[in-house]
Amino acid sequence: MTTGRGPLIIIGGHEDREGDRVVLRAVADALHGGKLVLATVASHRHEGYLSAYQAAFAGLGVGEIVELYVAEREDADDAETLALLDGAAGVFFSGGDQLRITATLGHTPVEARIRELWEGGGLLAGTSAGASAMSGTMIVQGPSTETHRIGDLQMAPGLGLVPDVILDQHFAERGRIGRLLGAVAQNPRVLGVGIDEDTAILVQGDRFQVLGSGGVYVADGADITRSNIAEAKADSALSLFDARLHLLSAGDAFDLVSRRPTRLSEADEEG
Amino acid sequence: MTTGRGPLIIIGGHEDREGDRVVLRAVADALHGGKLVLATVASHRHEGYLSAYQAAFAGLGVGEIVELYVAEREDADDAETLALLDGAAGVFFSGGDQLRITATLGHTPVEARIRELWEGGGLLAGTSAGASAMSGTMIVQGPSTETHRIGDLQMAPGLGLVPDVILDQHFAERGRIGRLLGAVAQNPRVLGVGIDEDTAILVQGDRFQVLGSGGVYVADGADITRSNIAEAKADSALSLFDARLHLLSAGDAFDLVSRRPTRLSEADEEG
Repeated sequence: MTTGRGPLIIIGGHEDREGDRVVLRAVADALHGGKLVLATVASHRHEGYLSAYQAAFAGLGVGEIVELYVAEREDADDAETLALLDGAAGVFFSGGDQLRITATLGHTPVEARIRELWEGGGLLAGTSAGASAMSGTMIVQGPSTETHRIGDLQMAPGLGLVPDVILDQHFAERGRIGRLLGAVAQNPRVLGVGIDEDTAILVQGDRFQVLGSGGVYVADGADITRSNIAEAKADSALSLFDARLHLLSAGDAFDLVSRRPTRLSEADEEG
Repeated sequence: MTTGRGPLIIIGGHEDREGDRVVLRAVADALHGGKLVLATVASHRHEGYLSAYQAAFAGLGVGEIVELYVAEREDADDAETLALLDGAAGVFFSGGDQLRITATLGHTPVEARIRELWEGGGLLAGTSAGASAMSGTMIVQGPSTETHRIGDLQMAPGLGLVPDVILDQHFAERGRIGRLLGAVAQNPRVLGVGIDEDTAILVQGDRFQVLGSGGVYVADGADITRSNIAEAKADSALSLFDARLHLLSAGDAFDLVSRRPTRLSEADEEG
């Protein structure tokens, strides 16, 4: 499954841009000095993103940084836009609205080219909306810092780069454990992964490790014995027994197949 | 263990005072028309609490409502204050600072009298700080809506009414899952119970049931396989593998001895 594919770096938003820049440094390292395509498609107003990220990556050894913006779906086969991806070492999806990424790029030549780049070993990274979009089924909207009610969650097909995982971001900062549990309860086959700000998971094959200053919550519904997700009314508060929860931080890793966390030995650590 | 003791109603703050008043109604029902002592000790400025709660309880069949306020610890053996508790059917601790409750009342005649009332079958209720204070060891301060760092949690001895439980409040609203896990990781003997706003647990003996519109999170650390709580630095993000998490809502119950959730049958439901 992992043959040839590059890494994914999935970021919970607000990655540090001025201090140690641990998360951006990991992105830079994975590019090996190559060209980075900044995909600002998630944003309705993309002005200023390119210069902000050029400044943020300054001194980290990234080659050229170019911006890929697609305003309308009909522009997603534009030759000039596709040419931006030539020779790129990676693509970085910035924040905004995850639905803009999938609705604009889904099943277009631009998406195909980005996937090709990844299949050939290139890096794909995403922060905030750019993180959510990598899910198989992604969270579009749902309650933060309030009781999770069954009908409050809006989901949509994501880019499917991490197919059996639902990725959520700004996780502790926006109090999103309720909505992640709500998502997992809908189909416990899928793991819920909630990433704090200035924190990322580096996915390589079937395993990820945690980078950055915050936490990563993994909600595993495999052992759920009961939930009211299918029987109750939309405005009912969620009820769910026996979820398993891991809270990971820098130096921890997780196997997506065995669904088990591990502590990296010092020798294993990267980034 | 439960012989003679009255119920506890432990509320996550911001209980509804104008609509269905499900939580306040449960408090009123447990008083059976008797006198309620509103203990506003948690607050530095207690003015207005009495009239607000008198209005909130209006029409729910509560008898007299009187206020018990103790400004300084040295006043906690005052005969007039103690007399307020004579003939009371219950005590309701309002919100503020939980440390004011324990520092002012801990090991005083007022506390002894309140406990006596409960041992004799009276109701004890508490909201927000008044909920936290009922814990064996209580959370005084800790991060909300941010990554939980090991050194961020301040705890203190509580009133010990629910000895092996750490009670947290405003739970979803203030994004407190991180700090509850951090508390539980320090000693997994203790269950973490996080209560959303306008939501309560009604504790009777070794069992509680959920009332109100929100959720109740139960974090059980019994199966934790690894955490960094004892080994890492104070500013490290918490890491913890294999916590068990239940999310309960109205109609669910929980056994504090077997540590198991159950769904109440319709016949069981109260309030």
